[in-house]
Amino acid sequence: MTVIDFTAFIGRLATASGDTILPFFRTSLSVENKNVGRDLDPVTEADRAAEAVMRRMIKDSFPLHGIVGEEFGSERADAEYVWVLDPIDGTKSFIAGLPIWGTLIALMHNGAPVFGMMHQPYIGERFSGDGGSARYEGPSGKRKLSVRRCATLAEATLFTTSPRLMNAPDRAQFERVEAGVRLSRYGGDCYAYCMLAAGHLDLIIETELKSYDVAALIPIVTGAGGIITTWDGKPAQSGGRIVAAGDKRLHDEALKLLNG
Amino acid sequence: MTVIDFTAFIGRLATASGDTILPFFRTSLSVENKNVGRDLDPVTEADRAAEAVMRRMIKDSFPLHGIVGEEFGSERADAEYVWVLDPIDGTKSFIAGLPIWGTLIALMHNGAPVFGMMHQPYIGERFSGDGGSARYEGPSGKRKLSVRRCATLAEATLFTTSPRLMNAPDRAQFERVEAGVRLSRYGGDCYAYCMLAAGHLDLIIETELKSYDVAALIPIVTGAGGIITTWDGKPAQSGGRIVAAGDKRLHDEALKLLNG
Repeated sequence: MTVIDFTAFIGRLATASGDTILPFFRTSLSVENKNVGRDLDPVTEADRAAEAVMRRMIKDSFPLHGIVGEEFGSERADAEYVWVLDPIDGTKSFIAGLPIWGTLIALMHNGAPVFGMMHQPYIGERFSGDGGSARYEGPSGKRKLSVRRCATLAEATLFTTSPRLMNAPDRAQFERVEAGVRLSRYGGDCYAYCMLAAGHLDLIIETELKSYDVAALIPIVTGAGGIITTWDGKPAQSGGRIVAAGDKRLHDEALKLLNG
Repeated sequence: MTVIDFTAFIGRLATASGDTILPFFRTSLSVENKNVGRDLDPVTEADRAAEAVMRRMIKDSFPLHGIVGEEFGSERADAEYVWVLDPIDGTKSFIAGLPIWGTLIALMHNGAPVFGMMHQPYIGERFSGDGGSARYEGPSGKRKLSVRRCATLAEATLFTTSPRLMNAPDRAQFERVEAGVRLSRYGGDCYAYCMLAAGHLDLIIETELKSYDVAALIPIVTGAGGIITTWDGKPAQSGGRIVAAGDKRLHDEALKLLNG
């Protein structure tokens, strides 16, 4: 089995999960069900259905591989190859009908992410990477992804999903960085990482991420020439406090402020 | 000339503006030009080019009509029919590569908006309304738009583009409402109004809007069964401080808090 085979297989996973999720997007089920008190809102239904589809495909094709998913937990998480799945990253956008959520699929080899994809099935666009290169495919055609240069914080556009998700000490450290940037924006979830890889923003700082929130995005960011680590400068695939930058100099400057 | 003719013409305006804007979306021109100090960033270029295209089409077809646009000001703003244009609403999203900006086109008759469209050309979706009904057309096909019921603030999902855009007294009033809602989210621009019309969120509160930020959205919101006014309860088409709700009861409750 070669890496090329995995790439095609990930594409099929994305297509199958997208077909499963789309009937739930912008439905009004949430209105009917939000007072029922059961786990039947559209985003949870879509999340579970899509993860189940992907798990079955993985088990059929690679029965010895491990799987870690948001909805159904871990199986064989110590296998040589492990798939890390988040069918809907950006659930708040999904619920509000905004098309800036995505399906995250990562393939880990011996604990390190070797391939990742973000798929937005409503728009029909995919961002993928293997750490060596990263690609876009969608309404604008196909192209390679490449980060942009940004030497200093003073020139940087910063994204975080929400400072309100941070605990007080982390938020204070975050605000030291935020005070120095050119532009700070909230929201974006997985899209922020893909837009960093595509050269449209410079810095992302988040906390309390899970492995499935970030694993697929690492090979996309690094494949486009960016850098992504924990606030301590360690590998990002376990989640936690994450800092991603398109330019190494900016990453260094952010790390210093976050740890200063 | 009937309303049906205007509807088809607005569709052609949207198509022409979208074709003009798309080559500028997710380009890296911003990197090259951001230090030049001239008015040549992609969003400004796209904004101006698209407004110029729409103005020429309007003048060719309806030489007596007025035009109000973000980029090129007002012409015959006291005419019986006036077109109100914002080629790119959501410029911060545009710059970051996030596909949640839109082209806003309104037709005013004797000062009141009688038709409005929001067009997102990258995704290929359009939301339109005439105050009596509202429609969606896009990747999910075609359907009528309808707001959802939401009787009280405690059940409501609230959107605002950013509280940081508000002056201090307005922000204090806004925060009285925000403190009472189920969920508060920032961002969205024109998309928030379309998602309110589609029944995915309940309340939008903003300040310092321009006429071209809101005129096109009024017939969409009211056509879907919603209500949109200033904080004083007056017509919204001149902009200023705006409150939109899917449910009249929620609008009443918000107005009381905003003016209390």
